[in-house]
Amino acid sequence: MKIGVLGGGQLARMIALAGYPLGLKFIVLDPDPNAGAGGLSEHLLGAYDDPDLLAQLAEKADVVTYEFENVPAHVAKFLSSHTLVYPPAGALAVAQDRLLEKNFFKDLGIRTAPFAPVDSLPDLQKAMPAIGYPAILKSRRMGYDGKGQVVLKSAEALESAWESMQGAASIVEGFVPFQREVSIIAARSPSGAIAYYPLSENQHRGGILRVAECCTNDPEQATAENYVSLLLEKLDYVGVIALELFDLNGELLANEFAPRVHNSGHWTIEGAETSQFENHLRAILDLPLGSTQPRGYAGMVNFIGGLADDAQLLNIPNTHLHLYDKTPRKGRKVAHATVRADSETAYRDALQHLAELALAVDDS
Amino acid sequence: MKIGVLGGGQLARMIALAGYPLGLKFIVLDPDPNAGAGGLSEHLLGAYDDPDLLAQLAEKADVVTYEFENVPAHVAKFLSSHTLVYPPAGALAVAQDRLLEKNFFKDLGIRTAPFAPVDSLPDLQKAMPAIGYPAILKSRRMGYDGKGQVVLKSAEALESAWESMQGAASIVEGFVPFQREVSIIAARSPSGAIAYYPLSENQHRGGILRVAECCTNDPEQATAENYVSLLLEKLDYVGVIALELFDLNGELLANEFAPRVHNSGHWTIEGAETSQFENHLRAILDLPLGSTQPRGYAGMVNFIGGLADDAQLLNIPNTHLHLYDKTPRKGRKVAHATVRADSETAYRDALQHLAELALAVDDS
Repeated sequence: MKIGVLGGGQLARMIALAGYPLGLKFIVLDPDPNAGAGGLSEHLLGAYDDPDLLAQLAEKADVVTYEFENVPAHVAKFLSSHTLVYPPAGALAVAQDRLLEKNFFKDLGIRTAPFAPVDSLPDLQKAMPAIGYPAILKSRRMGYDGKGQVVLKSAEALESAWESMQGAASIVEGFVPFQREVSIIAARSPSGAIAYYPLSENQHRGGILRVAECCTNDPEQATAENYVSLLLEKLDYVGVIALELFDLNGELLANEFAPRVHNSGHWTIEGAETSQFENHLRAILDLPLGSTQPRGYAGMVNFIGGLADDAQLLNIPNTHLHLYDKTPRKGRKVAHATVRADSETAYRDALQHLAELALAVDDS
Repeated sequence: MKIGVLGGGQLARMIALAGYPLGLKFIVLDPDPNAGAGGLSEHLLGAYDDPDLLAQLAEKADVVTYEFENVPAHVAKFLSSHTLVYPPAGALAVAQDRLLEKNFFKDLGIRTAPFAPVDSLPDLQKAMPAIGYPAILKSRRMGYDGKGQVVLKSAEALESAWESMQGAASIVEGFVPFQREVSIIAARSPSGAIAYYPLSENQHRGGILRVAECCTNDPEQATAENYVSLLLEKLDYVGVIALELFDLNGELLANEFAPRVHNSGHWTIEGAETSQFENHLRAILDLPLGSTQPRGYAGMVNFIGGLADDAQLLNIPNTHLHLYDKTPRKGRKVAHATVRADSETAYRDALQHLAELALAVDDS
């Protein structure tokens, strides 16, 4: 079987590494000649929406999946009409539009931060009394559109904030004074079988994930599983999904979901019986899902913008290194390291050490 | 860093899969256009002793290693004069010659089955009273020479047995009425650091390994570690080595060693903190060796000649599949499956189930 992947970065790389033992072959479409999954797969070099390359991908791959959610709708539609595409295009459509996504959560009865659609300055002005300050104005779509986000601290900022959106359909969201950010990763098969991983507790800085830790027996596990199961069923989803949540005084609020394998689940390579990458493949191939049971304590540290010395990292007990074969540049994820240990003390010591080394090279 | 591998079969494949996370690239030399490591590496297609290809391998690879021990001496010498080659050529020389190997054990004070060199029929006739029946006559060298082995049951068989060796320098070995076969896998760095894996207990049938199981806290662990450390030091060894031993009433007798990653250590991928493949790479790159601690109960079943259905295998709890991308044919290893479990019962049940499935397709 040959798996096609839109995107050939580190997620495709880790999918391929998980897939070889299952006897799979890979073909990626990526415009970067140095894409990290290139050496592990046949590489179609070009734009994600190049019709000829997409036709080749559809013809050569038994199933197509992707490593990012901003796949243009017409690309997903084209591929879906020529081959199996998982996760389904409907999940992409929701994940690509912040307003659809928030309304989707709301319709499923999952609480979110307060939000309102904004298509004009009056919309924004009208919404703010109920949303409250501070708040954040975001374009509904991102990635290919490249529109930004603006923090709103007071009513005086609204006009310039709206101007900066350049007329893009937007959404305003209130801040949630959450205690922690968590995510749940789950896999669903075409047959409807679902496997849930233990919650990850995630630390972001500057909008980039820095540390993700496995939370075995978390008190919010059941709630998170219920929420993600609602998404999976409603979307008739196939593959791995990640749902990011805020924990506000023991109540979970949905932030967003990613219809793909997710950085907050990288610890599953060593820290769970079956990795998210392998379970994504098992799901899209309708193979039995593997156990998601944690193996001891596990957590992951991202390396952003630079990497510590290999030997120094591998000298930290219980540390597993994952380099992405990417040239370091500002703000770019180039590697992660996972700690897996049987004792909590050994785990904490190693994770702390790694986090310090990551911070020292972090330029973002 | 680019690692060159002589041979592109399943061992090279698993070395490459372990090496990508360390940021390594691979180049293999293998005459088979469908070599299993081909898709994971640059593939030099041709004979193992092709001078042009060897020159390319030496030029492109920072370090060269191999997945089989029958590398011709002139090939090892050529490579060693142009690039780093680990394990060292001296270890190959010993491992390739059964008589050198047995004498090597003897000189280190490690007991073996009784043996004697045989270069003529009189040699054989003279040796047998001390060796005893049954015994086995083997050519000293194998692989490239392609000479065979003959079981000797009585003095009447000696003449025809010797004739069948076609004059090849040979060795006769007595049988050892051992209770079990075990192996110890260890890794040594250029700096002299050594990491030892827990013993594997191995079941062979027809000279082919069928099942290998991790033996945590085995009473013979310390003896085995001592024996393999003697080999490693004497050979000034770098990389992973496997020493096969017979357990005779609680005493260990050396059978043979393999200067490479070994089938009896495949369970380390899931069953140890760091796999033998990763530790082989760490060793030959002089990086810190990773922990060899077992993770629960672990064992491996080989699939010879054929493979059970993927979905059926993956449906067995705690099972991890490793397909080699090889076309099944009689007696050919095409895959292995590892069971890793936290409870002994779960482990035994799954291993038993796998062994039954493997036996059902086994044509050897």
